[in-house]
Amino acid sequence: MSNWLDAVKWDTDGLVPAIAQDHKSGRILMMAWMNREALELTAREKRAIYYSRSRQKLWRKGEESGHVQQLHELRLDCDADVIVMQVEQIGGIACHTGRESCFYQVYQDGNWVAVDPVLKDPTDIY
Amino acid sequence: MSNWLDAVKWDTDGLVPAIAQDHKSGRILMMAWMNREALELTAREKRAIYYSRSRQKLWRKGEESGHVQQLHELRLDCDADVIVMQVEQIGGIACHTGRESCFYQVYQDGNWVAVDPVLKDPTDIY
Repeated sequence: MSNWLDAVKWDTDGLVPAIAQDHKSGRILMMAWMNREALELTAREKRAIYYSRSRQKLWRKGEESGHVQQLHELRLDCDADVIVMQVEQIGGIACHTGRESCFYQVYQDGNWVAVDPVLKDPTDIY
Repeated sequence: MSNWLDAVKWDTDGLVPAIAQDHKSGRILMMAWMNREALELTAREKRAIYYSRSRQKLWRKGEESGHVQQLHELRLDCDADVIVMQVEQIGGIACHTGRESCFYQVYQDGNWVAVDPVLKDPTDIY
């Protein structure tokens, strides 16, 4: 039953990018990385589990903040090297800055401008 | 006016992942890579221009297929290492398999199952 994991084209670090999308609004919440174990656990536990490249260990999204991402659907792309998850974002906050989405900076005339509100003070999250 | 490009955290290969999302439906169409030149040209020409890792050169999405991605919005994430583009997908087909989105394989009981229809025969596209 692990051939679906073999079908994924892991990069030279054994990782694959995983995009989390809000299953209702369609908002792209974040992109992080998964290793084989993280992807297997994501499917098994039906919640997003990433691999933190900076901490070099599994990252059970929400383990500290409570902002768990419950998995509704898991997809793989044509090249088998990118994952998209449809998730329910518990708490409505995916970003460590306290915003709904990590993609809150918009390009405007040669600058990145933060356009989305901070919903919760990060110091109250962690 | 190039500081917005300096703000991006390019990986060790000088690349950043770029996600294309349909600006109306919210469907995630594909993820590919950009180098500095590709991102600059994307903003300037208001269409998605990637860097092909396999061909090691700029990839003007749609240059062969006509399936250009017109840019509506460009966003950067909190870590400045992932791009999201809101695009209008000309022809309604982003994937080289002739499907709307590259993410047409869904995880079901230990398998990846192709669930989306082929809208156009790839041999008629290229």
